[in-house]
Amino acid sequence: MGRWTPDARGRLAQAAIELYAERGFEGTTVADIAERAGVTERTFFRHYADKREVLFAGSTAMQDAVLAAIAAAPEDATPLAVAGDGMRAAAALIDSAGGDFPRRRSAVIAANPSLQERELLKLAALATASGGALRARGVPEPAASLAGQAAVGAFHVGFAQWIAGPADATLASHVEQALATLPTLA
Amino acid sequence: MGRWTPDARGRLAQAAIELYAERGFEGTTVADIAERAGVTERTFFRHYADKREVLFAGSTAMQDAVLAAIAAAPEDATPLAVAGDGMRAAAALIDSAGGDFPRRRSAVIAANPSLQERELLKLAALATASGGALRARGVPEPAASLAGQAAVGAFHVGFAQWIAGPADATLASHVEQALATLPTLA
Repeated sequence: MGRWTPDARGRLAQAAIELYAERGFEGTTVADIAERAGVTERTFFRHYADKREVLFAGSTAMQDAVLAAIAAAPEDATPLAVAGDGMRAAAALIDSAGGDFPRRRSAVIAANPSLQERELLKLAALATASGGALRARGVPEPAASLAGQAAVGAFHVGFAQWIAGPADATLASHVEQALATLPTLA
Repeated sequence: MGRWTPDARGRLAQAAIELYAERGFEGTTVADIAERAGVTERTFFRHYADKREVLFAGSTAMQDAVLAAIAAAPEDATPLAVAGDGMRAAAALIDSAGGDFPRRRSAVIAANPSLQERELLKLAALATASGGALRARGVPEPAASLAGQAAVGAFHVGFAQWIAGPADATLASHVEQALATLPTLA
């Protein structure tokens, strides 16, 4: 196997998630990951800043998808419907990638408190950014921030249910159910 | 001034928050705090495990108040009303303490990323615990978790507005406004 391959990034992610499950996140080195993926450490560092970034590299694309969907939502949609479109876009992104990476990633994160903290921070940042995108559409405060928080909360709950539930369900269906439940709570 | 005083804990908290504002959280030592409060370091450690705990010691009492209020809410209340009662109890606890500690604390936390992380983790734990308390009342999933997330999100937004707004407003009034806005978002 040559050192260069167009799918080195994907192989590195797959190798990393396998090793984190086998040896734990702390017990895995970048050298281990590169070896399992059949590439050099240098190749690893061309794709990821460190072994933690393998788990969080998708956050930027997810936030971009959320903010684009919020900006593109129908003009007359309610704040929650607009923020919900952001969460639908995030779920669609994860569903379209397919494979078991998200589930395995969740198991690794659940086993490591500092990774859990980082995951919560990413969600908090997504809620804040979503609130900002709603303000940019003219939604006043506190409605903009509240809709961002509520929609990300629904995503969080839908995601947890998806991970815990049968493997053939889509994340989108769980997020949709959570978003649909929100207005029934009051 | 004697080494023992019935209000050593309060004086330590006040001294700490002053020093964190003057010298930064990182630039302040336990020895500095004890000296300013007129007590020994040993007295500091009888009250707080470390200098960070001065800022987060109130979290346990707040979570206890929230969970007690959720358990005591009227039987026929909606999930959001029940979770909202939890947030009202948290706001009342902070308002009843009075003084400028919460505002000064927020400024210290805003200036330090690792303290911000801890604050977000405390809020995430509060949302999870609130969802659990709703389940214990018989609220099904995903409604229980969603109501916990949405109510804590409203508390978070109300708190931020309270900190940013005029000093004579109560936290309770901002939290109430945020809770009242939630059902209008959809």
